[in-house]
Amino acid sequence: MAGKNILYAQSGGVTPVINATAGAVIETARECRGRVGNVLAAEDGIIGALEERLIDTSRLNEDEVAALSHTPGGAFGSCRYKLKAIEDNRREYQRLIDVFRAHDIGCFLYNGGNDSADTAWKVSQIGDSLGYPVQCIGIPKTIDNDLAVTDCSPGFGSVAKYVAVSILEASLDVMSMASTSTKVFILEVMGRHAGWIAAAGGLVRREESDPPQIILFPEVPFDEGRFLRAVRHSVENNGYCSVVVSEGLKNGVGEFLADAGTTDAFGHRQLGGVGPVVAQLVSEQLGYKHHWAVADYLQRSARHIASKTDLEHARAVGRAAVELAVEGQTGVMPVIRRTCDDPYRWEVEAASLSGIANRESKMPENFISADGFGISASCRTYLEPLIRGEAFPPFGPDGLPEYVRPKFSLVRRKLEEFEV
Amino acid sequence: MAGKNILYAQSGGVTPVINATAGAVIETARECRGRVGNVLAAEDGIIGALEERLIDTSRLNEDEVAALSHTPGGAFGSCRYKLKAIEDNRREYQRLIDVFRAHDIGCFLYNGGNDSADTAWKVSQIGDSLGYPVQCIGIPKTIDNDLAVTDCSPGFGSVAKYVAVSILEASLDVMSMASTSTKVFILEVMGRHAGWIAAAGGLVRREESDPPQIILFPEVPFDEGRFLRAVRHSVENNGYCSVVVSEGLKNGVGEFLADAGTTDAFGHRQLGGVGPVVAQLVSEQLGYKHHWAVADYLQRSARHIASKTDLEHARAVGRAAVELAVEGQTGVMPVIRRTCDDPYRWEVEAASLSGIANRESKMPENFISADGFGISASCRTYLEPLIRGEAFPPFGPDGLPEYVRPKFSLVRRKLEEFEV
Repeated sequence: MAGKNILYAQSGGVTPVINATAGAVIETARECRGRVGNVLAAEDGIIGALEERLIDTSRLNEDEVAALSHTPGGAFGSCRYKLKAIEDNRREYQRLIDVFRAHDIGCFLYNGGNDSADTAWKVSQIGDSLGYPVQCIGIPKTIDNDLAVTDCSPGFGSVAKYVAVSILEASLDVMSMASTSTKVFILEVMGRHAGWIAAAGGLVRREESDPPQIILFPEVPFDEGRFLRAVRHSVENNGYCSVVVSEGLKNGVGEFLADAGTTDAFGHRQLGGVGPVVAQLVSEQLGYKHHWAVADYLQRSARHIASKTDLEHARAVGRAAVELAVEGQTGVMPVIRRTCDDPYRWEVEAASLSGIANRESKMPENFISADGFGISASCRTYLEPLIRGEAFPPFGPDGLPEYVRPKFSLVRRKLEEFEV
Repeated sequence: MAGKNILYAQSGGVTPVINATAGAVIETARECRGRVGNVLAAEDGIIGALEERLIDTSRLNEDEVAALSHTPGGAFGSCRYKLKAIEDNRREYQRLIDVFRAHDIGCFLYNGGNDSADTAWKVSQIGDSLGYPVQCIGIPKTIDNDLAVTDCSPGFGSVAKYVAVSILEASLDVMSMASTSTKVFILEVMGRHAGWIAAAGGLVRREESDPPQIILFPEVPFDEGRFLRAVRHSVENNGYCSVVVSEGLKNGVGEFLADAGTTDAFGHRQLGGVGPVVAQLVSEQLGYKHHWAVADYLQRSARHIASKTDLEHARAVGRAAVELAVEGQTGVMPVIRRTCDDPYRWEVEAASLSGIANRESKMPENFISADGFGISASCRTYLEPLIRGEAFPPFGPDGLPEYVRPKFSLVRRKLEEFEV
């Protein structure tokens, strides 16, 4: 790609550390000046790439770039937009190539999950036939931890740390008051298809009496009777019960609990959230006073309690992506390879996007304890290193984190408008 | 109280820093050895005092006492239990006095809110007539910030910091994705009767376009039309809208929105939470995709993001309470007096419990902006110092905060059992 520009884009749901990846991309490219040109960043993800809304990162000063590493959200904007198959959608692929050619893009870095890996793979394959060979490299990111091949997905470790710290803290609260007040606390966390995030709560529980006494995984069909018995058992033995429930919890016939039976006699949708559904069950069936929390976006934006390990992963894959670009590689993704559990050691290596695209990494069955309500020792061995270390952002004199929202300059357009 | 023991009890909802007050009480009493005896702590608050379940804090080593200052929840247990008027309930007051006499208690330190100040005041008045004069000192604590006389209530500042940091982070998330995904984010926070906690979200908003663009206060009756117009205005001008809603939000006739219309045709209660109610309104009336979070206990247990100022207040009132005890004072509470806004300066002074008991400190009307959706400059001047400074707990090698749950020893009972 000698001397050509890089186009960087963020894709899908953001994470507390995706901007750290972006910062590492820009910093590494600046170190490689001469071998790579400027880094352009697509505004609002692939849609900005198609619409030729390209941010000129050369206008950012060193401090602004450094600050990306401690700022949550997606600094350049992200989107949920999957390019369809090439056969059905040659128009958009052609447009991307046109944008690449117009802005002298030698390499496209696509920072996202499974879908983005698929798009990046396709783009890496199509340049030749469209008359503009271009390198294409995926960069891993997803709080769901469901990317194949990589040992873990940057973004997940910080969400895991948030969930573990939060359920620990809330449980200390509940146990203080349980003698006369709330006896059951329920925290709803993300993870529509896999229980990785819910599992992180289990890191707090070292002894049977420790919280959270119950984790409800999407992988384990919800059995109301067993659940209620487990709640009662904990209240009777520990004085309280602390529960982590995954938003993806399903009943015995595979329906999401948050959706099932959510329409009342007038056809009104009930207000979603599986946390309140489970909480109501506890009150109605057991008569215990409950409280529930839904962490929602708080969990995936909580840069203030990010995992240092996760932050290091996020920066390492950003750096590696640029290095792979300089080496002339294409159709690959830098992934995390764990080389040792204890002490935890890891390295970054390149893997083919073809083996990552559209695959989903499920939680191994043996990561869930025999009773279905906790995590196994092997799960702990896997998860614990990912939440290790703190990486607090700097705080200002006003008591708030010094997150940045730089003013971006778009590069001048060179093409006709394009309707996405 | 020369040489007599102190009885310390925690009351009502716990805070991220109430244990810091407890730690300061124990440390100060140890420094005053000779002038005060041992500190006993009631297990589960006033109920433990009545039931003669008294924790012997002399068994705690220095590290354990120090660790209280960075551990959330109520280490000794708390409860919601208000002693009735003396005329109706001489039995419980008599029992307290019996417990004090049996354990050589010279001073009762009651760490709580309005109700506890009332109990402490009554106990301070009744000792003489029951034949056992005892000093009684209240110590302020409540996340609701509704204690009279004191400039602020220890516990509130940390919750305020949590809310401000959380809405800032979640807003950065939403604004990243708003072009193609969620456009409205709603965070429900505590505050059933006053908007202090919701107001803290306003600290993030320095310019009109900053989040949160809308705060819904309990003090401002909810006007659906005005709210929806404000949401649309923000989405059209900023691309998204970030909302903080107080759990105490009421409609025009004074009903809680979280309760109003919560029974369906079958008489089933709806699942509470005003956050999802407001979110549903946005989707149904404006068609915007929304996300909502309910912070619930997470906000009042988040010691990991406690305010340093708040922590200092919490420790200072604990220390002052013991000093007042040593001076022989009774019927008082050490309160925070603000002596300067900028630079922020404060001191602790003793105030009579009679002026604090059963009074509620409301948010001044001029703390809410003219449009009812934000905070005023005077509110910012008041709030900002309270969230200043960080006081991260130590973290272990496992990535979790090193919160303590010491094993407590109860002192040997000397009285008959007592039924509360």
